[in-house]
Amino acid sequence: MALTIDLNCDMGESYGAWTMGHDDDILPYVTSANIACGYHAGDPTTMRRTVAAALKNDAALGAHPSLPDLQGFGRRVMDITPSEAYDIVVYQVGALAAVAASQGARLHHVKAHGALYNMACKNRELATAIAQAVRDVDAGLVLYALASSVQVEAAREVGLQVAQEVFADRTYQDDGSLTSRKRPDAMIVDPDIALRQVVRMVTEGKVESVQGVDIPVQADTLCIHGDQPGALVFARAICAGLQQAGIGLRTIEPVSRPAP
Amino acid sequence: MALTIDLNCDMGESYGAWTMGHDDDILPYVTSANIACGYHAGDPTTMRRTVAAALKNDAALGAHPSLPDLQGFGRRVMDITPSEAYDIVVYQVGALAAVAASQGARLHHVKAHGALYNMACKNRELATAIAQAVRDVDAGLVLYALASSVQVEAAREVGLQVAQEVFADRTYQDDGSLTSRKRPDAMIVDPDIALRQVVRMVTEGKVESVQGVDIPVQADTLCIHGDQPGALVFARAICAGLQQAGIGLRTIEPVSRPAP
Amino acid sequence: MALTIDLNCDMGESYGAWTMGHDDDILPYVTSANIACGYHAGDPTTMRRTVAAALKNDAALGAHPSLPDLQGFGRRVMDITPSEAYDIVVYQVGALAAVAASQGARLHHVKAHGALYNMACKNRELATAIAQAVRDVDAGLVLYALASSVQVEAAREVGLQVAQEVFADRTYQDDGSLTSRKRPDAMIVDPDIALRQVVRMVTEGKVESVQGVDIPVQADTLCIHGDQPGALVFARAICAGLQQAGIGLRTIEPVSRPAP
Amino acid sequence: MALTIDLNCDMGESYGAWTMGHDDDILPYVTSANIACGYHAGDPTTMRRTVAAALKNDAALGAHPSLPDLQGFGRRVMDITPSEAYDIVVYQVGALAAVAASQGARLHHVKAHGALYNMACKNRELATAIAQAVRDVDAGLVLYALASSVQVEAAREVGLQVAQEVFADRTYQDDGSLTSRKRPDAMIVDPDIALRQVVRMVTEGKVESVQGVDIPVQADTLCIHGDQPGALVFARAICAGLQQAGIGLRTIEPVSRPAP
Repeated sequence: MALTIDLNCDMGESYGAWTMGHDDDILPYVTSANIACGYHAGDPTTMRRTVAAALKNDAALGAHPSLPDLQGFGRRVMDITPSEAYDIVVYQVGALAAVAASQGARLHHVKAHGALYNMACKNRELATAIAQAVRDVDAGLVLYALASSVQVEAAREVGLQVAQEVFADRTYQDDGSLTSRKRPDAMIVDPDIALRQVVRMVTEGKVESVQGVDIPVQADTLCIHGDQPGALVFARAICAGLQQAGIGLRTIEPVSRPAP
Repeated sequence: MALTIDLNCDMGESYGAWTMGHDDDILPYVTSANIACGYHAGDPTTMRRTVAAALKNDAALGAHPSLPDLQGFGRRVMDITPSEAYDIVVYQVGALAAVAASQGARLHHVKAHGALYNMACKNRELATAIAQAVRDVDAGLVLYALASSVQVEAAREVGLQVAQEVFADRTYQDDGSLTSRKRPDAMIVDPDIALRQVVRMVTEGKVESVQGVDIPVQADTLCIHGDQPGALVFARAICAGLQQAGIGLRTIEPVSRPAP
Repeated sequence: MALTIDLNCDMGESYGAWTMGHDDDILPYVTSANIACGYHAGDPTTMRRTVAAALKNDAALGAHPSLPDLQGFGRRVMDITPSEAYDIVVYQVGALAAVAASQGARLHHVKAHGALYNMACKNRELATAIAQAVRDVDAGLVLYALASSVQVEAAREVGLQVAQEVFADRTYQDDGSLTSRKRPDAMIVDPDIALRQVVRMVTEGKVESVQGVDIPVQADTLCIHGDQPGALVFARAICAGLQQAGIGLRTIEPVSRPAP
Repeated sequence: MALTIDLNCDMGESYGAWTMGHDDDILPYVTSANIACGYHAGDPTTMRRTVAAALKNDAALGAHPSLPDLQGFGRRVMDITPSEAYDIVVYQVGALAAVAASQGARLHHVKAHGALYNMACKNRELATAIAQAVRDVDAGLVLYALASSVQVEAAREVGLQVAQEVFADRTYQDDGSLTSRKRPDAMIVDPDIALRQVVRMVTEGKVESVQGVDIPVQADTLCIHGDQPGALVFARAICAGLQQAGIGLRTIEPVSRPAP
């Protein structure tokens, strides 16, 4: 079987009169779009436009739910209960699902945003609540989760299909976690090294930690950042490099999808 | 065929730490619940609880979308475009549909809230946009609309089933519109007169305007106010009176419902 | 006495992670900054930065209060009561006054934003409520209001100093009102014509309406748009042209200022 | 000198159409009102009414700033930076100061709300940022802070007058902190024991910890809860008991107050 990977990118993060990102430029290079649902970005009109643009570019539609923090763009950790997490994920996934439905389409996946994603990578209870919310709205959805994190376990436990997410431009620790952004060696700035890291993750299922140890990793989907300087150049380089390495770009195939 | 009418009531209008209404007391007396979706009231946790309470009481689940105005409880007219109306209705209906889905249930109807409802009764373009939004999310939903208003026409034109809404405690004008609340004769405070008005609307399809003229009206669903002093007493009296008059209380039967 | 005019520009309209406008580029060309106060744009951090930038550029600090409509950027008419208008203006002016105070500075003026400004130009009751709010917070503030509008009268009646605002790039009607943007002849796109219009307003106190009639106008302050393509070029051209015509650029002098 | 204590209570926590608390009933029993500023509760209209009610009852006006979390009533810890804390406190204090000014009055104190208060009791950097914000808006304001907490130290360090706050219905730990609400012995439910604890704190400057050790405490102001069942009965009992014990009820006297 041919090796493939999914390229996902956060999208639709404009709000009202404010624009963010370069969605139309990035969309041709990604296979999955994580679309903001109103809690950190993405008003209803932006959501409609983003779904339409993703569909036009054959990108799989994903909901990108967040903590309720427009002022902080969902990046600030909030001490919410698992029950609150469940409720806000149901709400946001449903809102985007309706936008998709109104255009004759259907959601494919869910990826938590910002602080909610980070919290779910470490907090099992929270991860379980999020996974249950996704499953209870539509058991055929795929959860995008940090590779090797507790979010992966939690999703599997509740019976949800998981896509393990890896990063090209981030370094890894021995335990499979990402190096904290507070450390100087957190980021990989050289595109060649970044590309090699991804290729090896896909072809060998391994990544070398900053401690110099090979650790196993399952690379189902690669996160492409759309809103940083040089994002488009980076996306192009990764796409070209992966294809050159014989790795196909393809979104995650939903395993079980209940008939609509 | 036995005469019946649906009794609908706005529900789930608490928000965060604030409570509003007496949903648990009123629910046994209504057949349809219009549930707030977060724009004028109803945070995700309140929505979950309200859907559960409605299901427990066998009330049909309806979305109650609003203008985005938490501070003004959705009661202040806002000059939104039809396109904006479409988008916010899709968003809110979808959010509540997911809450229902997460509890194994499905939405039955949509009723616009407050200023959005009033605007849609007079503005055909806006009414069409709202009806299209509802249809595009789920063509099997029923739209609750003021009897004889342009909202009824608009919904029919886009192919949506409509339930015409009447009021027991409001007087009517010759043209079938409700008397403005700014006029002293807008409200019917005597419960006996209110009951007689409803019974006649159901049995004869007529209501006497304040000008003393009989006008035709189709009474599919009656609006019960849940948040006013004496609401419960009024609800009980109306229920008892309707049953005594041989009128059954039953929610609107969806005519066409695409298989889920 | 030398002829002068004030150049005012809306500022600080970023919000959280979203940026808007080119404040740092425009600030050297304006004498008064109208700073968003959180209701249509301008979170507290943006407000602090904008006040600091305005102070650095010797621009007078003005509050730019809005309707509560982040999603619509304060551009959508909302049917608020005069009492609500009073309350939201007090709130927003106070918030910005504190940001100024925390940097050892003081507010100089208030200009309503977007739909609130437009509503106040036509609705005398609303205009009075806004003027009272400004006066009750600080009677030494100057209200920036559309020249010849009811807002000017309302402000004077409540004892507030007014600066009459004119536009370089908008045409005028016989009654002194701006031509509606819905009409094709609303905008002046030729910078030379725009400049000539301003110069004549300042030197002769007259403007020619689209109907070809000279009407009187008092040009205390000129609105510079900061967020449109070509804004900077236009600002530079207006500045240069006014100075060439011997018109000084100077902010409005507060007439009565209670000792702090 | 006669012994006195200030009784403070959170007020103005209604929002839009939602009401909370029994401000009018409680106000006669308190000497200081902590008024919500819009971030966890308290829209501008509620703020105006609450300031008017406090003035009518001769209660000192205090701002009660919060984290930006309307949905969570400011009770959920958010990971904000000290700089963000500074900005949101300036904003909210300023908004309420303007409401006071519009009624010819002036703020007397500031007390952080909910999670922001709790965070500031433990996090020195955050406490310093909050104290600086208050001082930079008006150096004559008094900061209400948990007795013996780092917030007290931080406020003093920036040169702000502090009122140390104690609780009648909470138990204390050996280190002077409040017993966590998660522990069964956190609350004092017997009003007599609660009263004795307060009287001893005022007269002896001591409180017995749950470990049975006497610890020193400075009781400048006592927190009265206004929104719990039995709040009014409790407030009355405390007032009567304190007066019987010869302790006067009087708000904090501002030590240094720059001329307005």
